[in-house]
Amino acid sequence: MFEAKLPEAGILKKVVEAIKDLVQDAPFDCSETGMSLQAMDSSHVALVSLKMDVSLFDTYRCDRTINVGLSLATMAKALKCANNDDSCHIRHNDDDRDNVTFTFNDPKKGRTQEVTVRLVDLDNEHLGIPEQEYSVVLRMPSSDFMKTCKDLSMFSDTLCIAATKTTVEFSATGDSGSSKVTFNKSSSSDEDDNDEDNDDKISLDVKTPVKINFSIKYMNHFTKATPLGNVVKISMCNGVPVIVEYPFGTDNLSSLSFFLAPKIDDDVKMEA
Amino acid sequence: MFEAKLPEAGILKKVVEAIKDLVQDAPFDCSETGMSLQAMDSSHVALVSLKMDVSLFDTYRCDRTINVGLSLATMAKALKCANNDDSCHIRHNDDDRDNVTFTFNDPKKGRTQEVTVRLVDLDNEHLGIPEQEYSVVLRMPSSDFMKTCKDLSMFSDTLCIAATKTTVEFSATGDSGSSKVTFNKSSSSDEDDNDEDNDDKISLDVKTPVKINFSIKYMNHFTKATPLGNVVKISMCNGVPVIVEYPFGTDNLSSLSFFLAPKIDDDVKMEA
Amino acid sequence: MFEAKLPEAGILKKVVEAIKDLVQDAPFDCSETGMSLQAMDSSHVALVSLKMDVSLFDTYRCDRTINVGLSLATMAKALKCANNDDSCHIRHNDDDRDNVTFTFNDPKKGRTQEVTVRLVDLDNEHLGIPEQEYSVVLRMPSSDFMKTCKDLSMFSDTLCIAATKTTVEFSATGDSGSSKVTFNKSSSSDEDDNDEDNDDKISLDVKTPVKINFSIKYMNHFTKATPLGNVVKISMCNGVPVIVEYPFGTDNLSSLSFFLAPKIDDDVKMEA
Repeated sequence: MFEAKLPEAGILKKVVEAIKDLVQDAPFDCSETGMSLQAMDSSHVALVSLKMDVSLFDTYRCDRTINVGLSLATMAKALKCANNDDSCHIRHNDDDRDNVTFTFNDPKKGRTQEVTVRLVDLDNEHLGIPEQEYSVVLRMPSSDFMKTCKDLSMFSDTLCIAATKTTVEFSATGDSGSSKVTFNKSSSSDEDDNDEDNDDKISLDVKTPVKINFSIKYMNHFTKATPLGNVVKISMCNGVPVIVEYPFGTDNLSSLSFFLAPKIDDDVKMEA
Repeated sequence: MFEAKLPEAGILKKVVEAIKDLVQDAPFDCSETGMSLQAMDSSHVALVSLKMDVSLFDTYRCDRTINVGLSLATMAKALKCANNDDSCHIRHNDDDRDNVTFTFNDPKKGRTQEVTVRLVDLDNEHLGIPEQEYSVVLRMPSSDFMKTCKDLSMFSDTLCIAATKTTVEFSATGDSGSSKVTFNKSSSSDEDDNDEDNDDKISLDVKTPVKINFSIKYMNHFTKATPLGNVVKISMCNGVPVIVEYPFGTDNLSSLSFFLAPKIDDDVKMEA
Repeated sequence: MFEAKLPEAGILKKVVEAIKDLVQDAPFDCSETGMSLQAMDSSHVALVSLKMDVSLFDTYRCDRTINVGLSLATMAKALKCANNDDSCHIRHNDDDRDNVTFTFNDPKKGRTQEVTVRLVDLDNEHLGIPEQEYSVVLRMPSSDFMKTCKDLSMFSDTLCIAATKTTVEFSATGDSGSSKVTFNKSSSSDEDDNDEDNDDKISLDVKTPVKINFSIKYMNHFTKATPLGNVVKISMCNGVPVIVEYPFGTDNLSSLSFFLAPKIDDDVKMEA
């Protein structure tokens, strides 16, 4: 028996909307610490890693670790039925292993909506993500990152991110023109220095400067997670996949992360 | 001479928007009690019945009963010219039988807009609607009914409505999943018991429980009338067409109603 | 060296959005009095004339008169990167003649976005616009003019404008119906008589009444300039092109104007 209740369906809606165009069917792991998911996108270029900590849920009961394969398109349909502030009850019974039931409840209206979703069979190979030290960790408002990726995609397919101790520069160069967006590390008085909660600020933690190229198309996909949180955390190191992470929930214990390998081209080779 | 003035063009806009996708050309009956219309949809599955009571109008003059055939597409164009709170003057002169003139007036701006619409020839067979006792009369917020039909149409083409003394359940079952929406009769203290004006409440008047299947596609069409009023009244009886009625105007003397025959399938046959 | 700074990128965005569907590549003239542009639309039916007075700019430096050819599609991309209230810095260096650089700055966020646009080669024939006396000069709210053109285009391709001393009438006649919009000269007390700033009023200056037909399609194009200003000024004379002018900026020293020749048909001939 797996049974969990989110106080607001909105959070699961945002998660599913963020990944449903990248991943078709997803294996959700339900364990006593929460629900999680790891999946490659359908072209096997990007990796999606979701962690929904048990603290997100009002009630949570997981008798034994299970893995349920769900079609994200069907989940999206189910969640379209919910208003953002309906409660969302998720249930998988051992005597009905082929289905998961989502129940949305709006107590003010006395309305209960139940959606039963058929499970899909999935090869459940767990993907190992190696631990990695990153040269640059950037935190910035997620809306600024979304706008930047969208703007630059008008000029090129390739996004170049270059970070120094004080500045991060996003750029794209195409035939008709080129564009460059520069963010400066927020100047902060000593008092504010450790204030990581300030969502409007750019925080840059740079061991070694980096300059890396990425596919803008994928970055634009990742920014569909923007509604999940005000801040995006981008971890980079020359030659290894970037992590674009959207923390959410109490104490940011939950997160939706995307991994994407750099584009290998002359520019990057010169840097390496 | 027929001449009538609506204080707000918005009401006619909403009527035309609600039916223009179901009915192409419509015969409007103008008599001393008001304007009315009965028409089958173009696939002859649903019947639309409109009653605009004389109380809707600021001024109303109808020398003799006339029938004017109007293209709803052209009426929609005409009404797109009007702001919702413009007054709307409708005129049909005996010496210009081929046209109806709509005049929209915004006194604040000194703007008058006149649209002349050519009449269309229509066979004017009046459709008899037999009087009928209904086992179940349900009143619910029209927005909830609209959302329910829209949600369930993601899962199936068939909507099942099942009503008991205390509960009405809408459900749809498809290949990838199924959904069920349950509304409970609003619990009400004695004081509120006769308070039919309370638009947020579910009122259920059940002589015999029913369980009937309908085409969701048509229900979705009918819910385009939602902007007309806060409440929808659904009258059901096994084996006869449902009435989905949107009352509007002073004392709800006006209404837009849709009639739809049940889908005959095993489920329904078993009930009968 | 040409260098100019607009306090708000929004104004240039609106200009480019207004003309980019009419004109593909545009020759901008930069001189010490400001930036200007004259171009025929791609079908050589309408003429666009833009004047951005030096007073629009915070800083303005133009060492010598230059002409820069810009693709409006690329400019539109560049300006999509800017928020409306970002400052917009435009620069063309003599040592990099092939490019113009737009720099958008949002000081609140410490964000700077730079877009470099490649110039295009254009035949720079200056179009002479003869001085002309007009029989009718109409000023009206630009939003009313936009709505009128849009409404009437549902009924016909031809817009007829008829103006008398006190009234201007826009009309269109088609197969399914016809429409007519009448605006009356605003009645004004003596005090208000010279109050040209009153944007809600219709002002009509009529030497001789006119009745002229135009292509609604082009009028609808011109009304894309509506966001530039609250008032449109329409100057008409039988047999010569109309001017549809959107003044903007300090003291209305800047403007975007469109010239369009009348449609010659029986109606107009009879008037002439």
